[in-house]
Amino acid sequence: MDWKAEIAAAAERSSAYVQRTPVMRSTVLWDHPVDLKLEQMQHTGSFKARGAFNTLLSQPVPSAGVVAASGGNHGAAVAYAATQLGHRAQIFVPEIAGPAKIALIERTGAALTVVPGEYANALEQARAYEAETGAMQVHAYDAPATLAGQGTLMREWEQQGLDADTVLIAVGGGGLIGGALGWLQGTRRVVAVEPGQARTLDAALEAGAPVDVEVSGVAANALGARRIGSLCFDLAQKYLARRVTVTDAAITEAQRTLWQAHRLLVEPAGATALAALRSGAYRPEPGERVAVLLCGGNIAPDPLG
Amino acid sequence: MDWKAEIAAAAERSSAYVQRTPVMRSTVLWDHPVDLKLEQMQHTGSFKARGAFNTLLSQPVPSAGVVAASGGNHGAAVAYAATQLGHRAQIFVPEIAGPAKIALIERTGAALTVVPGEYANALEQARAYEAETGAMQVHAYDAPATLAGQGTLMREWEQQGLDADTVLIAVGGGGLIGGALGWLQGTRRVVAVEPGQARTLDAALEAGAPVDVEVSGVAANALGARRIGSLCFDLAQKYLARRVTVTDAAITEAQRTLWQAHRLLVEPAGATALAALRSGAYRPEPGERVAVLLCGGNIAPDPLG
Repeated sequence: MDWKAEIAAAAERSSAYVQRTPVMRSTVLWDHPVDLKLEQMQHTGSFKARGAFNTLLSQPVPSAGVVAASGGNHGAAVAYAATQLGHRAQIFVPEIAGPAKIALIERTGAALTVVPGEYANALEQARAYEAETGAMQVHAYDAPATLAGQGTLMREWEQQGLDADTVLIAVGGGGLIGGALGWLQGTRRVVAVEPGQARTLDAALEAGAPVDVEVSGVAANALGARRIGSLCFDLAQKYLARRVTVTDAAITEAQRTLWQAHRLLVEPAGATALAALRSGAYRPEPGERVAVLLCGGNIAPDPLG
Repeated sequence: MDWKAEIAAAAERSSAYVQRTPVMRSTVLWDHPVDLKLEQMQHTGSFKARGAFNTLLSQPVPSAGVVAASGGNHGAAVAYAATQLGHRAQIFVPEIAGPAKIALIERTGAALTVVPGEYANALEQARAYEAETGAMQVHAYDAPATLAGQGTLMREWEQQGLDADTVLIAVGGGGLIGGALGWLQGTRRVVAVEPGQARTLDAALEAGAPVDVEVSGVAANALGARRIGSLCFDLAQKYLARRVTVTDAAITEAQRTLWQAHRLLVEPAGATALAALRSGAYRPEPGERVAVLLCGGNIAPDPLG
């Protein structure tokens, strides 16, 4: 797979639909300046919109539209991209997703069914709907079009003048960091940051292959994939510079610091990469210029009530 | 007063201390693209840090340091700038400021006295402290060094490639818009946006001179100066393109929209300029390129509890 070409093509076809998110250099988040990309300002509050748009723009979408089982960032992004592009979208949301996430998906205009019980119940209904109607599913992380879409973020950051040796990125299923590795291919150091309680990439690299892990903790609703995607795993084996894990306490501390220092309100997953720096889980060399990706802002409850 | 020169000098002396805040172009906040400057990400959550740093860097500060009576953005900015520059800072905060603002000032490391009762009680104690110790006060808006400091914001925005015919700016005491007018001097259209319940500039321009107005409403804790500053008034008479007022409902709607569209959490004053556009209080001509300044993010209660 020629990832550079795939990502450039993804950017070409989706740039009119995706928010170009701002960058900044903070001098107060750490001992040395840190470059940030504020991707939590993306449509529906996370980078997931990039992969969703690229997927729907790079292949035929059936007249039945798209279907997803999700109460999270992926579901909101798929709902938004589909409705913006004029497709039907049916999202099955587990009741446990909570009112803030349900409202987020509702605002996209997608058809939404709240399913009592756990995620598995919503997934069952989504599969039945898919079989019945022929609607398509968009993979959350382990599909080339998803990963190439997420890769447009790093391409955009470089166009915005990214001036860093090292980029810290949080890992869930691996779509975001996979896209970054596919774009950079070793030209900058990429550091994977995972919650200690959701270490899918760490466990896979240790085992030599993707393996299932137990997931829990404050960031699990966004970074809680059970198993790293195979596309990301292959790219990580080739290009990943370093991987570290952080505690829930470090994530919460980083989240609070972003709010107090810059009025940046992000979800725990969105603060996970910064947590590696602030907690010392990742210690740069003297003079190493560090950038941190903020990837999601869908906190609950809704801060405006 | 050569405002361009004053503002350039202010930028020169304070740039190492002030956060360069990001800019972005949003395609979803209004019918046409809108350029934003995210000044709520400034140190202590508002543009006020610019004026405070410039004031303390452009004149001798007595060994007794600085004193302020404030439970708001100005007090936090003065406390932060003073402590960062190694001066003593004593802030008298009225109890009614509430725990979020009190914690914000506390985090700067300034000495803080919570004064029971209203603002007037805090002011009385601050004046007594000033008389007794010789500490200096920093004016919140109507002093050349304050206004020149706030003017660095518009200079910075132009350096970041601002591409707009018109800039919408919220008005309280007039330091921020005064600085913008002093920098731009008619080279772009500046539109003043005031809450209908805090129309200090509107009333002054109507009366031909600054006059006292009654203030109330959702943005009054930040835009609730009773009387427009005379420096701002003079600049507005010369250079202001237009003034409009907005309702509290429009402000609240704009605040909610910023959160829902971009995970930008700002205080009511910070959303006031956008409210003019979204509510139709200001209607651009076809093709007119519009920019909106987000100026403050100190909401209460603390969204992270």
